[in-house]
Amino acid sequence: MAENRRYVEIKLEGRNAVLEAIRSHRNIDRILIAETEASPGDGKSGALKSIASLAQRERIPVSYEKKETLDQLSETGRHQGVMAFAANYSYAEVSDLLEIARKKGEAPFLILLDGIEDPHNLGAILRTANLAGAHGVVIPKRRAAGLTPTVARTSAGAVNYTPVARVTNMAAAIEELKKAGMWFVCADMGGTSMYKLDLTGPMGLVIGNEGEGVSRLVREKCDYIASIPMKGDIDSLNASVACGVLAYEILRQRMIREV
Amino acid sequence: MAENRRYVEIKLEGRNAVLEAIRSHRNIDRILIAETEASPGDGKSGALKSIASLAQRERIPVSYEKKETLDQLSETGRHQGVMAFAANYSYAEVSDLLEIARKKGEAPFLILLDGIEDPHNLGAILRTANLAGAHGVVIPKRRAAGLTPTVARTSAGAVNYTPVARVTNMAAAIEELKKAGMWFVCADMGGTSMYKLDLTGPMGLVIGNEGEGVSRLVREKCDYIASIPMKGDIDSLNASVACGVLAYEILRQRMIREV
Repeated sequence: MAENRRYVEIKLEGRNAVLEAIRSHRNIDRILIAETEASPGDGKSGALKSIASLAQRERIPVSYEKKETLDQLSETGRHQGVMAFAANYSYAEVSDLLEIARKKGEAPFLILLDGIEDPHNLGAILRTANLAGAHGVVIPKRRAAGLTPTVARTSAGAVNYTPVARVTNMAAAIEELKKAGMWFVCADMGGTSMYKLDLTGPMGLVIGNEGEGVSRLVREKCDYIASIPMKGDIDSLNASVACGVLAYEILRQRMIREV
Repeated sequence: MAENRRYVEIKLEGRNAVLEAIRSHRNIDRILIAETEASPGDGKSGALKSIASLAQRERIPVSYEKKETLDQLSETGRHQGVMAFAANYSYAEVSDLLEIARKKGEAPFLILLDGIEDPHNLGAILRTANLAGAHGVVIPKRRAAGLTPTVARTSAGAVNYTPVARVTNMAAAIEELKKAGMWFVCADMGGTSMYKLDLTGPMGLVIGNEGEGVSRLVREKCDYIASIPMKGDIDSLNASVACGVLAYEILRQRMIREV
């Protein structure tokens, strides 16, 4: 299989480049600061300290490394004691995902994430989408994890195979896809047991936010509300686990249909 | 349901207490250091800097807070500029887990983790165990995530309901449980499709390490090797997702049996 690299990590070097990137909320995975440069007592350390504290506020991991380490990693030779690693990725269009299904001669199977925030969950969901045979993942542009280096890492390579499309309005995107013949199922409490639903057609699986679940507007667009059997005491599965259980129920039903 | 609290967070205060806790590899979730005390130029800051750098090596998150914050959190009034939050938990015995199944009149269903290292995965698996109706989780004493505050948090409360037993030797524990009539299934490549296995009896589900999978000794003890259908390009699901998919296949088969 040819690897279709959608994700490349790029290096930012020097104080201004790194500061600008943090301030513009670029997807920075981590920042390296040279140990010696960060020592107190000179003018330079002030700038690096500002970067470190700004990074902390933005929850970007900072590690202090030997200056020689930065020298080796540097491509410009002018890192000024600080480097950042940022994501450079490309998103697909929703129509691309449908085209992939069409080319494979399969009923479209998309996974739509209504505000997954944790990059580890997004990475795990990309793995699930890839292995459960989904043709792609749709995420919202705002208030959600995007394709960052952490997502790329936790996706165990799936980010290079399973396309991700970003949409401004998830409910509107669902409405469009329904016109193209797709059906939508979301996971929520109080629905029909997933084992009793026919999930074999052109299907969009909608997974809600980790804390809030599926938003009202999106839930109202869904044709089915599926519930995962719950035999315990707590309220919900982890979002990426719930996505895995439902995606595999869709795959199981499709496999039975094929037999 | 009465909540059976197995997890309590305890505070450690003062430089020696915190240093000792880090050095003895106690389960510390986070360390708070007073901002003013950490400022350079006096003797004190050296001790706090040592704690911060030791914490970094042990990958314990450190946050710098106002001294007043620590004053408020302090119970002893003698935090010396540093506090740590550590887990105090209690583990069950393997026999307790079987007893829970017996009292419920159900065939035992245990989840055994052969070296899960990521606390987020352990937390997610505890949620799955709770909701899929497992009677408990068995983890190894060494080289594996234990019940830490991060696990407690990511388990969304499941740690208070689903008992966790620790064993020195996973293969030996499986051998003992087989004598008690249990069967064991592990997830691995090259096994039989999980849909073709009868997983309805007294069952132990074995999930391997995130990177290495199930160890050879443990796999050899298993009665079945189950494979999850893989229709994609990458090698494996996230460990907690794989656990969720298999645990729900066990639950699905049990529910059909009950009908």
